[in-house]
Amino acid sequence: MSNVISHQIQLVNRPTGWPTPEDFRTVEVSYGELPMGHVRVVNEFISVDPYMRGRMNDTKSYIPPFELGATMTGGAVGRVVESTASEVPVDSVVLHQYGWRDVVQEEAAGFRIVQEIPGVPLSAYLGVLGMTGLTAYVGLTRIAPVAEGDTVFISGAAGAVGSTAGQIARLLGADRVIGSAGSDEKVAVLTERFGYTAAFNYKSAPVRTQLPQEAPQGIDVYFDNVGGDHLEAALDVLNRQGRVALCGAISAYNSEQTEPGPDNMANIIKQGLSLRGFTLGDHMDLASEFNQRMSTWFSNGQITYDETVVDGLENTVEAFLDMMRGANTGKMVVRTA
Amino acid sequence: MSNVISHQIQLVNRPTGWPTPEDFRTVEVSYGELPMGHVRVVNEFISVDPYMRGRMNDTKSYIPPFELGATMTGGAVGRVVESTASEVPVDSVVLHQYGWRDVVQEEAAGFRIVQEIPGVPLSAYLGVLGMTGLTAYVGLTRIAPVAEGDTVFISGAAGAVGSTAGQIARLLGADRVIGSAGSDEKVAVLTERFGYTAAFNYKSAPVRTQLPQEAPQGIDVYFDNVGGDHLEAALDVLNRQGRVALCGAISAYNSEQTEPGPDNMANIIKQGLSLRGFTLGDHMDLASEFNQRMSTWFSNGQITYDETVVDGLENTVEAFLDMMRGANTGKMVVRTA
Repeated sequence: MSNVISHQIQLVNRPTGWPTPEDFRTVEVSYGELPMGHVRVVNEFISVDPYMRGRMNDTKSYIPPFELGATMTGGAVGRVVESTASEVPVDSVVLHQYGWRDVVQEEAAGFRIVQEIPGVPLSAYLGVLGMTGLTAYVGLTRIAPVAEGDTVFISGAAGAVGSTAGQIARLLGADRVIGSAGSDEKVAVLTERFGYTAAFNYKSAPVRTQLPQEAPQGIDVYFDNVGGDHLEAALDVLNRQGRVALCGAISAYNSEQTEPGPDNMANIIKQGLSLRGFTLGDHMDLASEFNQRMSTWFSNGQITYDETVVDGLENTVEAFLDMMRGANTGKMVVRTA
Repeated sequence: MSNVISHQIQLVNRPTGWPTPEDFRTVEVSYGELPMGHVRVVNEFISVDPYMRGRMNDTKSYIPPFELGATMTGGAVGRVVESTASEVPVDSVVLHQYGWRDVVQEEAAGFRIVQEIPGVPLSAYLGVLGMTGLTAYVGLTRIAPVAEGDTVFISGAAGAVGSTAGQIARLLGADRVIGSAGSDEKVAVLTERFGYTAAFNYKSAPVRTQLPQEAPQGIDVYFDNVGGDHLEAALDVLNRQGRVALCGAISAYNSEQTEPGPDNMANIIKQGLSLRGFTLGDHMDLASEFNQRMSTWFSNGQITYDETVVDGLENTVEAFLDMMRGANTGKMVVRTA
């Protein structure tokens, strides 16, 4: 056993609008000898996710905001380098929520050993095989269930959740899967790699114009990562008994003002629609079902994924901001090892 | 058998904004001898309902708009005066959808015989014991189910659906039922007669100010008859996993412009809320369950109701407009007999 220095990124200001590098600081923490029942983990990848923006605000919410002056928490995957807990031995690959740091030393109960699939990089356990994939799965099975033959629309479709959701929708029986993304390059990726039937660039014309063109028969399910104009356009074309999973509203996360909701809420009544919001914490009971089905799909080559990897803990804040700006395709992760 | 003159009210213009008497005309139709399998019914009461405003517009919808130059359809209850159909004999009390007229003569299949509860006026079968009561029941059992101990908020609470919904919410186990209405008189009726725990006049201060005062612990279920500011205020205070039944948006029915939606849609995600719209036609499978439970509640004296009765077919249009303006307490009906 030995002492080690852990580099950690902390939130020091609550951002107004877009976060800046000045809202964060990097500190060094010295870990001494490992107490009994603890493990020391060297992270390989850490996750930057849209939901983190919300937790930077000091608003009443189901999960408390990030603490000022404390290390940013969030998903990470690493390898155990020292252990005084027999249930989590050295060399285990573990997932945890200790966030933006290179080394973590905590009680063994805070870590979950990954059942590795041979040949899969560890970053995938933060993305398609992890919380990101589970988010897409929960949305399309419980929140807005996809039925055989459905037309499904997914916004932010080239993002981490969206690129997985499109594929899951097809695997669940959807006939037609339509995606929106913020560049022509991403739009091409959607149909070429992620199995989308059709896709459009929401920056090139109003969503309200483009979506009906791609969905002449309407849509049955909408998986919303964006909110705003996308939700409004979806409410225009949702078929009777249509379902909406509200997963994210990245269009509003950095807005300093509240924004008006859709001007066509009356369609919810007329069409008998269901809109349901969700955060993953309420649906972890689906995790084992997801792990089983996703492993099978993955091993059968029925799921592909992209990721955007940024190197170096010191680039984490920039990676987070790039992800919020949509610079990523697929899951954005930071390689710390 | 004899000839008879039927007076019928027809829609002749599609109103823009508030309907006017000029949008309607009254015609006389002469019915001759009753064909085989038909019945002739003299109406006793006809129903005027908020949903009718929507059908006056020529918009794509799940049910076609009212036809111009045709008699207004809608709920009515009357008595069979002649019959050539053994299954619907003379003197039967029947419900039907032939709407705004004093006499109707049609095939027997278009009529449903009422199982009368002794001492109950026939108008109740259009309201608390009929479609109105069923609407409240569907909303609080299927769309936004009430659980034991819930706090329930109901807007337009003194209206036909709202005054029944408050009582059903209590019977389903709600701890606290809060209602909004548009006058101090109605507010008093809510707590004194309809079992509401608390009520407020939405015209005396913003709903967003008043609702949190009446719901310091938040709300679990919102039954929305109004839309607009009421829905926005409800989204502010809905507890985790809260449920919203979107039944009506009377605040917008006569608006010539679209109105922006709630500015706090993000709460749907944060709080894991469900918003579901409905129209009764999709939920008629609950009718027999409702009839059973409601008859029991009613016979036990656990349900009370108000109605506003307007006399004379010739006052139907005015009654409809008064109802849209909120002049009624409880169900608004027109006595035609």
